[in-house]
Amino acid sequence: MRSQAPLRACGALLDYKTVKFALTRNRRVGLLHRLLQLGVLGYVLGWVLLARKGYQDTDRAPRAAVVTKMKGAAVAEAVGKGRRLWDAADYARPPQGENVLFLVTNFIATAQQSQGTCPESPSVLDAVCTEDADCPVGNPVVHGIKTGKCVMFNTTHSTCEIYGWCPVENNTVPRKPLLAEAENFTLFIKNTVHFTKFNFSKCNALQTNDPTYFKSCTYDPFFNRSCPVFRVRDMVEAAGETFGDLALLGGSIGVRIEWDCDLDHPAAQCQPQYSFSLQDRRYNFRTASYYWDSQRRLYRNLLKLYGIRFDISVHGQAGKFSIIPAAVSFGTGIAFFGAATVVCDLVLLYLDAKADFYWKEKFEEFTRSQKTLVE
Amino acid sequence: MRSQAPLRACGALLDYKTVKFALTRNRRVGLLHRLLQLGVLGYVLGWVLLARKGYQDTDRAPRAAVVTKMKGAAVAEAVGKGRRLWDAADYARPPQGENVLFLVTNFIATAQQSQGTCPESPSVLDAVCTEDADCPVGNPVVHGIKTGKCVMFNTTHSTCEIYGWCPVENNTVPRKPLLAEAENFTLFIKNTVHFTKFNFSKCNALQTNDPTYFKSCTYDPFFNRSCPVFRVRDMVEAAGETFGDLALLGGSIGVRIEWDCDLDHPAAQCQPQYSFSLQDRRYNFRTASYYWDSQRRLYRNLLKLYGIRFDISVHGQAGKFSIIPAAVSFGTGIAFFGAATVVCDLVLLYLDAKADFYWKEKFEEFTRSQKTLVE
Amino acid sequence: MRSQAPLRACGALLDYKTVKFALTRNRRVGLLHRLLQLGVLGYVLGWVLLARKGYQDTDRAPRAAVVTKMKGAAVAEAVGKGRRLWDAADYARPPQGENVLFLVTNFIATAQQSQGTCPESPSVLDAVCTEDADCPVGNPVVHGIKTGKCVMFNTTHSTCEIYGWCPVENNTVPRKPLLAEAENFTLFIKNTVHFTKFNFSKCNALQTNDPTYFKSCTYDPFFNRSCPVFRVRDMVEAAGETFGDLALLGGSIGVRIEWDCDLDHPAAQCQPQYSFSLQDRRYNFRTASYYWDSQRRLYRNLLKLYGIRFDISVHGQAGKFSIIPAAVSFGTGIAFFGAATVVCDLVLLYLDAKADFYWKEKFEEFTRSQKTLVE
Repeated sequence: MRSQAPLRACGALLDYKTVKFALTRNRRVGLLHRLLQLGVLGYVLGWVLLARKGYQDTDRAPRAAVVTKMKGAAVAEAVGKGRRLWDAADYARPPQGENVLFLVTNFIATAQQSQGTCPESPSVLDAVCTEDADCPVGNPVVHGIKTGKCVMFNTTHSTCEIYGWCPVENNTVPRKPLLAEAENFTLFIKNTVHFTKFNFSKCNALQTNDPTYFKSCTYDPFFNRSCPVFRVRDMVEAAGETFGDLALLGGSIGVRIEWDCDLDHPAAQCQPQYSFSLQDRRYNFRTASYYWDSQRRLYRNLLKLYGIRFDISVHGQAGKFSIIPAAVSFGTGIAFFGAATVVCDLVLLYLDAKADFYWKEKFEEFTRSQKTLVE
Repeated sequence: MRSQAPLRACGALLDYKTVKFALTRNRRVGLLHRLLQLGVLGYVLGWVLLARKGYQDTDRAPRAAVVTKMKGAAVAEAVGKGRRLWDAADYARPPQGENVLFLVTNFIATAQQSQGTCPESPSVLDAVCTEDADCPVGNPVVHGIKTGKCVMFNTTHSTCEIYGWCPVENNTVPRKPLLAEAENFTLFIKNTVHFTKFNFSKCNALQTNDPTYFKSCTYDPFFNRSCPVFRVRDMVEAAGETFGDLALLGGSIGVRIEWDCDLDHPAAQCQPQYSFSLQDRRYNFRTASYYWDSQRRLYRNLLKLYGIRFDISVHGQAGKFSIIPAAVSFGTGIAFFGAATVVCDLVLLYLDAKADFYWKEKFEEFTRSQKTLVE
Repeated sequence: MRSQAPLRACGALLDYKTVKFALTRNRRVGLLHRLLQLGVLGYVLGWVLLARKGYQDTDRAPRAAVVTKMKGAAVAEAVGKGRRLWDAADYARPPQGENVLFLVTNFIATAQQSQGTCPESPSVLDAVCTEDADCPVGNPVVHGIKTGKCVMFNTTHSTCEIYGWCPVENNTVPRKPLLAEAENFTLFIKNTVHFTKFNFSKCNALQTNDPTYFKSCTYDPFFNRSCPVFRVRDMVEAAGETFGDLALLGGSIGVRIEWDCDLDHPAAQCQPQYSFSLQDRRYNFRTASYYWDSQRRLYRNLLKLYGIRFDISVHGQAGKFSIIPAAVSFGTGIAFFGAATVVCDLVLLYLDAKADFYWKEKFEEFTRSQKTLVE
């Protein structure tokens, strides 16, 4: 008997087998079933297809190119040093215009340092001393190596003598930012994204032939979204800070450019969103420039720079209709219809008043039906 | 009757219930069913398993380390300044060899600027004036702050006097790039990727003990893929530009390194793809170096640098057979077989000539069959 | 007959149709079915829900901000140049504290280079010559352009004369690193991640009001995870290298900060993992500073810097319970129950001793049952 199975299977290859259903006139379970089906349908259409755009193929890793340029000039009045004009070559670091850039708003200059011995700054806690024994020879402190002597720093403080760059930096920050006018400087952020999967490129700046356009416009989230020239103060305020506070001791502002493009719509609708957030309060670093005097002795000018660091990151995704993800989204949606049936069956077989009767009808016993045929 | 249900459920735990099918000899629907099943099978095998490698676990976020080095030397003839040799320490900025680097091909030098007053450049539109009233005191222009006077810039132009770094920069770009020979410079890009999920590392450069290898080889997409030393002109041309155009006013070239590794194959087949694209025409920035004269007066040398910026980005993914994604891909594929059945059922029950008969057979009514048994 | 179909379909909308099963008392297949179901259940609960946390929505692209600061001072004894103290402004490049930074541990200084002619270094292989004919005019070598003459470099070597920056760099690396004490320097890495999807931010450093805390603490993976101040030697050793080896000729260390946050748990448990790996042995670059003498002749001081480059990358993901991914994970899990049934059916219909009998019962023929009704 069994040997016939493969043969028959071949012959009956084109027979269509459809699942047998048992029809119940149970309106309550029927209603439940329809409601569940409606829910699944709503989920598939509403969430998967409309909200999540499950019918689209997406590219989440665009190539992003960022070029930045700071503009503006301001006069700063340093105590005892006269007025000085600062332009972009002075206050922007690094000058290249990368995606992390730094605007100097305050600084402490220590000119003409050379290698030698001098008293450590009294603001360094473990350099304060009363006798030579407090200064073990060779111990490193912040600005150099202790020489073993305890010397007068000024009339009120004694500190360990050190070998290092002398004189040491004066640690007192000015009370107000030197470059307070930097709030009116502008930052031009040119960002191009390229979605390789769809070979689609977009730039955040207007494609214009007018060379003066970007010299005069300013970004406005409602009226002028195609001019990515941001005022420094606007950016700081969008991050929830006031410029004066950050300018004094420095800070770090994150600039996030977010592209969310639906390429089934016209390309003009694909516009970036800009958001600003405070990453860090207090930001400074030291940099030095070196020179030699006529006796070939090495000197340096040390600058401790305070300022605002802008950290620009680009994120993006683009979606476009594609048959494969559409099929997958649709297919997994359909799988949920099966789940609706499972729930209804459980209700029918375990919770309904006539459960026992339904059970017998649904699960038709082989042995019983065989007997019936024989009789 | 209902109270027996749980008991019986326990006892019959090992009964196997198989779905009852109604067998129809309807060849048309049967054929349709088989065709749909073949389509699904083709999709599962062809697309999910072969094209998309759905049986693999993937790592799409490799650690990537990029170290770059520019090499080459060329003599540039500056008008009125004699010849000068440029080497990598002169033309590569920043010198560290990061993933964004800049090759100077042209520049405007403004030597010995100091703080003072001088006429603004006539190329700044809102600095052109005919009388003092055109120059409101304190207004910032590009290179400084207006002092309120209108002065002669040269014999033909009058401009507002400014306070700032003087003299102001001469705005005329040379007609041909100073460093035209930079097209023969080479850029060595060493890139290591590490796929943490599979603990697999690969470098784009040949692992060799010959220290001179990378000094003499050049990248060739067909014959020499393990020598990532790129000629600057080749890169510019691969981005669809000519070197001369970009060198004059600068530009930005994106270099994308793409790793797509199938770790089920030998590691030697895992090779990166390089692609080059133009990100931006016109690229320049200003940088200054400062010095003091014998009277301790601050001077700076300002350089406006034009050149080619290379922006290197690394993307990668690696796949390796894993039982879980294989099961998921297979499982979701199977779900589509169910969809084929749904389609055929709809045809059978609504479009077929004997639909009504099939309907009755498929949906066996509980009440009716009960009666039949009773009779 | 067919025209009634739509009508009946509408009327019977609330009829519940449940799949008819054929109940077999086949214990072997029943057991197989239960085992497969248990396996699927184990997979869904164990893997999808617990191991992969399939019930969570995840954010894999956090905004990450990295600010670094090197600290420490050491005295280096250069041969014939006396002792010199190095502090952060001297050895850290670039000074801004970005996510790629470089610690100078060794260098070759070439002071007072100016444009002129001089013999090329004998370490450049194609510059070694015996007569003028070996030096074609205009050929570029490493440090300049050949002038066509073959001259004595020292008593033992003759090399081509070049036009370029003269004298050329001396190519011999010191036998031991100049800044061997740099192993005790510390690197402070402040990293803030922000998961935009959940509006959740976390910093790797303790939020403290004690300004001296980060001046005295050091990172320890077991006892002090909230003080991200790393000793240079610890980092090099965690990457599997010894400091002395890397310091001599330079190297590149990758620092990876990995956040894996389960936001269903308290935020305090969300702590980063640090890992260190060697990216590259040998790392150096050249940088120059320029100056003019009293005759306005251009000079430069060239530095070839060897050292350790730290490349910090941040990766992260956060998960939080969400109803949609929970439903999807659950739904796809359920789909596997169907696969279990398919396997059992195949066993029952093709491998079982009574396969033929089961076949007939499972696939009830329309035609046959019709005849039965007619009879």
